[in-house]
Amino acid sequence: MAQKAFGWAARDTSGILSPFQFSRRGNGEKDVTFKVLYCGICHTDLHMVKNDWGISAYPVVPGHEIVGVVTEVGSKVEKFKIGDKVGVGCLVGSCRSCEDCTNDLENYCAKMVLTYGGAKYFDGTTTYGGYSDLMVADEHFIVLVPNNIALDAAAPLLCAGITVYSPLKYYGLDKPGVHVGIVGLGGLGHVAVKFAKAMGAKVTVISTSPNKKDEAIQRLGADSFLVSSDQAQIKAATSTMDGIIDTVSAFHPLLPLIGLLKTHGKLVMVGAPDKALELPILPLIFGRKAVVGSCVGGMKETQEMIDFAAKHNITPDIEVVPMNYVNTALQRLAKGDVRYRFVIDIGNTLNSTM
Amino acid sequence: MAQKAFGWAARDTSGILSPFQFSRRGNGEKDVTFKVLYCGICHTDLHMVKNDWGISAYPVVPGHEIVGVVTEVGSKVEKFKIGDKVGVGCLVGSCRSCEDCTNDLENYCAKMVLTYGGAKYFDGTTTYGGYSDLMVADEHFIVLVPNNIALDAAAPLLCAGITVYSPLKYYGLDKPGVHVGIVGLGGLGHVAVKFAKAMGAKVTVISTSPNKKDEAIQRLGADSFLVSSDQAQIKAATSTMDGIIDTVSAFHPLLPLIGLLKTHGKLVMVGAPDKALELPILPLIFGRKAVVGSCVGGMKETQEMIDFAAKHNITPDIEVVPMNYVNTALQRLAKGDVRYRFVIDIGNTLNSTM
Repeated sequence: MAQKAFGWAARDTSGILSPFQFSRRGNGEKDVTFKVLYCGICHTDLHMVKNDWGISAYPVVPGHEIVGVVTEVGSKVEKFKIGDKVGVGCLVGSCRSCEDCTNDLENYCAKMVLTYGGAKYFDGTTTYGGYSDLMVADEHFIVLVPNNIALDAAAPLLCAGITVYSPLKYYGLDKPGVHVGIVGLGGLGHVAVKFAKAMGAKVTVISTSPNKKDEAIQRLGADSFLVSSDQAQIKAATSTMDGIIDTVSAFHPLLPLIGLLKTHGKLVMVGAPDKALELPILPLIFGRKAVVGSCVGGMKETQEMIDFAAKHNITPDIEVVPMNYVNTALQRLAKGDVRYRFVIDIGNTLNSTM
Repeated sequence: MAQKAFGWAARDTSGILSPFQFSRRGNGEKDVTFKVLYCGICHTDLHMVKNDWGISAYPVVPGHEIVGVVTEVGSKVEKFKIGDKVGVGCLVGSCRSCEDCTNDLENYCAKMVLTYGGAKYFDGTTTYGGYSDLMVADEHFIVLVPNNIALDAAAPLLCAGITVYSPLKYYGLDKPGVHVGIVGLGGLGHVAVKFAKAMGAKVTVISTSPNKKDEAIQRLGADSFLVSSDQAQIKAATSTMDGIIDTVSAFHPLLPLIGLLKTHGKLVMVGAPDKALELPILPLIFGRKAVVGSCVGGMKETQEMIDFAAKHNITPDIEVVPMNYVNTALQRLAKGDVRYRFVIDIGNTLNSTM
């Protein structure tokens, strides 16, 4: 039997959110239902509420950095019990049988079901995100949040965290002796610095903003800092990096970044510019360099990531806001005015906003 | 003592070649001197004689697909003797001590010395290419041409051959069960089809020219053929290829090619467009796909490639031309009017052109 739910939704391309009553599927035998306590605000939410990518189906209840406490488990659920702290990230379903699914890469499954935005779950119901009071998902797509991480700060790990953790691991940028560049010091970038440092890498932050230098080095622990427009600084760092995680979603030049890579280095794109970027080919050829994409991570790796974060005391820097602040928060996010991630205090503020 | 040499050189950006007398270094103790018999005409020669990349120093004696017979060996040469059939490709020197050199990747060494074009060898002498009567190089940069390959057809393997062989190996596209796309059926592309087939891969040729279909399938042995402008064909092949070798040096769209790749697939650029290409980022992200460059190969791999070619009877399809036809050949090459590689018969025609 369907479960009544309540949240905030965008109704059109204005992207403005307002209260919304809806229903989620009943808790199936492999499902876990949980009371949502916190939900991070990801830059993707901004794109989706405005239908920037042309894939949104309104009403859109955003939110894919969702944490809470389990309230119901199906009869065949094996990994969770009532009272567990859990989270859901960007996906709530996949085919479970293709090569990617078999290799714990559900995030690349062609039948992957997004947590919200217009996707249909396999039973035909529309999926809605975490700006809402309760969530239901198959246990395979739920991660256990370790007890020693603050729940509010854990939320952004489920998208921002895994988005940068996965390529650091996959491209071997997760160990002492490697030099990693992080482009952009926002929601993704600041977590990338923390993960890469905890993994033992040397970390250089590359930013358009000279005034982020102290922040990057003194507070986040980066080893060095480059202003991307300073050609002398960029030139001095030519061919020094094994890999770069590029978190910038605005149009920007790739040539200087490719130049920073050593031969065989990887430029990993995790930001999502709407517009095609300009790719010079000769510098790729002469250094066997690569420009690659990476999209969150599989469920096994997401659990591994959050366990790693708990072990190394890594949490995103957050600003906790009430539900009725969400439209202002989205406006501020569009201007880059947050250090570094908004998290909505769903548990304490959602009901009171009615 | 310097050795007198004779060849054809471009003197200015007209790119027109004419006879040229010059000198090469004397044969050092680790050097091999050989009489040049054949030299392939690579598309790079066209760029270099016209200084398209701004790195040429005139006079330019082009040619980096050079084969001939050894006439002199230094006292410390270990691998070659007078009378051996040998070849030189795109490089004649490297530092021999950096990480890339240590890993048999001299082709990516920052101090790599190009076979011609304005590069200086470590002794300060200018390097000149293979459109000339004799060649001298350190034995490390010389490969042995197996006896069962025709010398004229072997020449293009030294650049075109290794350029496609190396990424097929490096990216795991060298075995049964993988599906490889080859974009462009020219000097590089037609050899790529032959190598990929000999390695056991399924091969699809992707071309702008529908009239190359029969050639690709019936004569070169490709499994299938796609016309790149035919959207229905391209769409039907979505997400079917493990990797693509893109040999096109003209401006062209990458989006359809990225769409042909399976998740985690690699689009390998080996052509060299002057102008930046447009790179859409979202399709890379959603499939963890990569756009990568690759530049010839190291000396160990080049020897392995030519041995593989000999074992599998792989030779490029060539049109042998006399030395004094070179300017016409370059003009025809610029128009794509060759199937598939010009090779200059240096041994029989160079002297007679004086």
